[in-house]
Amino acid sequence: MPPLASQTIPEPTALLFGLGDPRHTLTQPPHDALGHVQHLGIPCAWLDTTSSASSTCALPDWLPLANTHPQCAAWPAPDACWQALMGLNVNRLDGCILISNQPTLLQAGLNAGLWTIGLAACPPAASDWQDLSPQECEQRRARATLQLFALGVHSVIDTLGELRTCLADIGLRRLKGEKP
Amino acid sequence: MPPLASQTIPEPTALLFGLGDPRHTLTQPPHDALGHVQHLGIPCAWLDTTSSASSTCALPDWLPLANTHPQCAAWPAPDACWQALMGLNVNRLDGCILISNQPTLLQAGLNAGLWTIGLAACPPAASDWQDLSPQECEQRRARATLQLFALGVHSVIDTLGELRTCLADIGLRRLKGEKP
Repeated sequence: MPPLASQTIPEPTALLFGLGDPRHTLTQPPHDALGHVQHLGIPCAWLDTTSSASSTCALPDWLPLANTHPQCAAWPAPDACWQALMGLNVNRLDGCILISNQPTLLQAGLNAGLWTIGLAACPPAASDWQDLSPQECEQRRARATLQLFALGVHSVIDTLGELRTCLADIGLRRLKGEKP
Repeated sequence: MPPLASQTIPEPTALLFGLGDPRHTLTQPPHDALGHVQHLGIPCAWLDTTSSASSTCALPDWLPLANTHPQCAAWPAPDACWQALMGLNVNRLDGCILISNQPTLLQAGLNAGLWTIGLAACPPAASDWQDLSPQECEQRRARATLQLFALGVHSVIDTLGELRTCLADIGLRRLKGEKP
């Protein structure tokens, strides 16, 4: 095997997002955090339990709502993750990554054999943290970080602003032979 | 972590079989090779491209034909493997194992993130090897073994007679932290 330095870090095979209300979580600064993903043309889908029109109409064209079978077993069963990958015509599990702020969905991703990235300072709805002091927000962020790592997720970041760096880190870990 | 010797080797989470014509591959001696699996109550399903009544009626009760969606992407896409696991209500990919004599299905299993066991001396149909001399059979077995390992399968055995030992070996590898 050639030395790591001469090898190209692999891009993700597919990305699944489950971040609650996209009107809130996709519009936080930095606004272009997802531009890199979109530019690379990586297949992406949005996972949601409700699929309410009010929230999903806020999704951009390149990030469609995942098709899930009506009788699909609920999170943390792995079914919704696998169905989302099948809907994207993904041909292998290797390199598929779930990004979420919801522990039950992250557990579903772990059960499905995905790489998982937990978001610790990105509450699913705008109302969740809005009345908290900066100190309370920091306490929540720290607690969420510990809880997400205890769950077994592979990486924890605060917000989508750190996504590009985190994806590169997972690519390097894959290059070194780590498996999720 | 306690020493390996004091830990129990984990049983498989689920087993998927894809061995061609069950009238041929499930009736070869030793007849009770699958008794251990049945005894443990491990969820099992049979994968087939044809699902013809003539072959699937030969399946025992504990080894049902996997439900696959009519529009399911063909092997080596991972879809049929994931759908089979969902049909068994399996709650995690970890410990799920595919056993097959068909390289395309084994590739599908690898793409789905399964552990894979290839069978090197178990042709899918009775007619495949019946007119061969013992020497020709041995040559085929040796060639198949090399091809299956080149594909990337995790274990290669000759026949189902070695399945129990092979499953214990995979259990030990899981206990040591190996991932498929």
